[in-house]
Amino acid sequence: MQQRTTDQQATDVAHLRRALELAAQGPVADPNPRVGSIVTDAAGEVVGEGWHRGAGTAHAEVDALRQAGDRARGGTAYVTLEPCNHTGRTQPCSDALYAAGLARVVHAQSDPNPRAAGGAEVLRGKGVEVTGGLLADEAQALNRSWTHLVTTGRPWVTWKLAATLDGRSAAADGTSQWITGEAARADVHRLRAECGAILVGTGTALVDDPQLTARRPDGTLYPRQPIRVVMGERDLPATAKVLDDAAPTWHLRTRDPKAVLQALADAEVHRLWLEGGPTVAAAFLSAGLVDEVVAYVAPVLLGRGRQAVTDLGITTIDAALRLRPTDITLIGDDVRITADLHEGHEALEALEALEAAGAPMRTPTTDPTNTPEEH
Amino acid sequence: MQQRTTDQQATDVAHLRRALELAAQGPVADPNPRVGSIVTDAAGEVVGEGWHRGAGTAHAEVDALRQAGDRARGGTAYVTLEPCNHTGRTQPCSDALYAAGLARVVHAQSDPNPRAAGGAEVLRGKGVEVTGGLLADEAQALNRSWTHLVTTGRPWVTWKLAATLDGRSAAADGTSQWITGEAARADVHRLRAECGAILVGTGTALVDDPQLTARRPDGTLYPRQPIRVVMGERDLPATAKVLDDAAPTWHLRTRDPKAVLQALADAEVHRLWLEGGPTVAAAFLSAGLVDEVVAYVAPVLLGRGRQAVTDLGITTIDAALRLRPTDITLIGDDVRITADLHEGHEALEALEALEAAGAPMRTPTTDPTNTPEEH
Ligand SMILES: NC(=O)c1ccc[n+]([C@@H]2O[C@H](COP(=O)([O-])OP(=O)(O)OC[C@H]3O[C@@H](n4cnc5c(N)ncnc54)[C@H](OP(=O)(O)O)[C@@H]3O)[C@@H](O)[C@H]2O)c1
Ligand SMILES: NC(=O)c1ccc[n+]([C@@H]2O[C@H](COP(=O)([O-])OP(=O)(O)OC[C@H]3O[C@@H](n4cnc5c(N)ncnc54)[C@H](OP(=O)(O)O)[C@@H]3O)[C@@H](O)[C@H]2O)c1
Repeated sequence: MQQRTTDQQATDVAHLRRALELAAQGPVADPNPRVGSIVTDAAGEVVGEGWHRGAGTAHAEVDALRQAGDRARGGTAYVTLEPCNHTGRTQPCSDALYAAGLARVVHAQSDPNPRAAGGAEVLRGKGVEVTGGLLADEAQALNRSWTHLVTTGRPWVTWKLAATLDGRSAAADGTSQWITGEAARADVHRLRAECGAILVGTGTALVDDPQLTARRPDGTLYPRQPIRVVMGERDLPATAKVLDDAAPTWHLRTRDPKAVLQALADAEVHRLWLEGGPTVAAAFLSAGLVDEVVAYVAPVLLGRGRQAVTDLGITTIDAALRLRPTDITLIGDDVRITADLHEGHEALEALEALEAAGAPMRTPTTDPTNTPEEH
Repeated sequence: MQQRTTDQQATDVAHLRRALELAAQGPVADPNPRVGSIVTDAAGEVVGEGWHRGAGTAHAEVDALRQAGDRARGGTAYVTLEPCNHTGRTQPCSDALYAAGLARVVHAQSDPNPRAAGGAEVLRGKGVEVTGGLLADEAQALNRSWTHLVTTGRPWVTWKLAATLDGRSAAADGTSQWITGEAARADVHRLRAECGAILVGTGTALVDDPQLTARRPDGTLYPRQPIRVVMGERDLPATAKVLDDAAPTWHLRTRDPKAVLQALADAEVHRLWLEGGPTVAAAFLSAGLVDEVVAYVAPVLLGRGRQAVTDLGITTIDAALRLRPTDITLIGDDVRITADLHEGHEALEALEALEAAGAPMRTPTTDPTNTPEEH
């Protein structure tokens, strides 16, 4: 019996791993989470694979069921996220899975969305066996910013800065093109493309007149462009590059970071790329609204010059904001340091609380006190 | 014949590699270079190994010959640095090798010292076969700062700085203990111990009252302490920690970095650890006298605060000092970035010129245009 359980778990993990691979093919900047699914028949043979291709398209389970057809009857569906139970752009996935006659559903991350949660409960009520929580950490890491939005109501905010070894973000005359090398600049564009929106203050928009699009090294646009957001009360000239038609643009006439994040959350943007300038960066940091910093440190010395951020109200070293580095990579001649602003941040805490509440449906294969690596 | 040459070269390289390992056991902060040696008998059997243990002790060749005794006759001596030909604290090594009856001498780096060079020439004149230049890059890397001193007349200057992600070296109130973590601080002490001297300005000495010793994490002193140098015209109080008897201290009443380097060169110090403060760092940088930067970047944000360096006279980005990173290491939560200030710096150019001059005795197994990796 113990043996059978162990074999089963190994099979479950293998199928969920494959489902995670499928999920990763989904679009990262989409409002919806990336989800993958595998369907096996009653004999355990894989008869369908699917993943979610973005808002307005089929959910992963439905995509996999479409391939499986009648062979799904009596089989098992593996999904990287708990099947949804709400009618949105599509019918609830719990209904679709029940209708397909599946005997068992295995999911990784529990749905952190209070509106959508309950798919597992509904299925179980209808006699379907449900196992949840396997590889939950990996599944959540895949949708870190989406989970953050769903649990906190705010997009995940990544502040990008570029600085010299001696901490300058521009020379004394304001010139900053280029502190970092070509490879680092290409990396910034790649990361911009992974975000739902990109933000600067009116100061940067007026002084630098940036286009704020996500471009490949050859200058062409990435297929999916983040919303360009300029915050601040001043008008922008009609000729501002940020107002061209390469991507949607919002000029939010506010100085309140919270109001900006609310507007983005309402538009289902779960990841914001904050590019400055120093005043706006300080506003977000001081309000505790930055989740992650991506710093490109260039092997350059400038002496005098400008800072990446203005006053944060910190006057002594004990009050410094201490971050946790999650990644360090040499990009060309520059060093990219990625660091989190909160150890066990609210998103994770909220998520853990939710998962603890749904504890009976969780198979404790992973240490429940374990927080995901890449957070 | 070609075959024999190839075999011989493989043997030569293997013995020189072993000699390099022996050399690396020598003291890195010593005025003398680190040198290793292997002696084989006429049949090619290893009969002696030696290395230089620092100024006032036997040179590596002599150390190895002592072990070999009479068995050296008709054999080969392998040395990582061209045997010296000058009478200093010891007799010329070229004499010792000749007297031992060696048939052949194989060395790596040519002696860059204009006073000492010529050992190979003298031996060859006496009928000893001499091969030079094999693994020269590795051998030189082992004595980078010594080579720099010998060829330029100046110690190799490493500027150490610690800064936050947003480029602050101290908070607004001047507090900077601690920006970096314990592991980074231990690393600084380890690197201090590798230098012949450590320098600050009177400003830092008066404000911070540092001890400037090289200490292990448990607080005990490393066996070899760098000379503590304080530069600047102001007096130090007799109670200054830097004047205790834990290590020698020089108070150089000058503001001229060149004069400081001359005094250090006269004392055969080939590596200087420059710890600041911002005024003195700027003086060395502006004079083009910094060879390398070791920057500890801490995952910390401060906003307002102080800089690691004052004005360098650079006003626009095109005039920035661009460095070449040679190493990036995560130390605790901090990132250590090591970078060179000059691509093909004078030391290397001078060295290459010297080696080119001695070209006939160089076996071109390595690309002569190749500059050492770790430079
Ligand atoms: N090196 C880099 O990485 C980098 C990146 C970006 C920018 N920059 C440089 O930064 C400089 C611009 O600096 P900046 O500080 O003016 O740029 P900014 O932060 O982009 O814009 C500041 C402006 O935004 C508005 N604003 C929005 N929210 C605010 C708030 N909470 N508090 C105060 N003001 C708020 C204000 O203008 P209103 O009066 O319109 O409200 C304010 O003057 C440019 O020279 C640019 O080159 C450098
Ligand atoms: N965070 C860090 O990594 C770090 C490291 C070191 C220091 N610091 C901080 O730096 C602060 C001290 O700053 P600082 O700039 O005064 O320190 P400094 O550079 O150590 O000392 C400056 C003083 O050195 C003398 N000096 C020597 N050569 C000079 C030259 N070429 N040009 C001008 N002056 C020369 C001058 O004093 P005379 O009148 O005596 O000639 C000058 O006032 C302290 O608060 C310390 O905590 C921070």
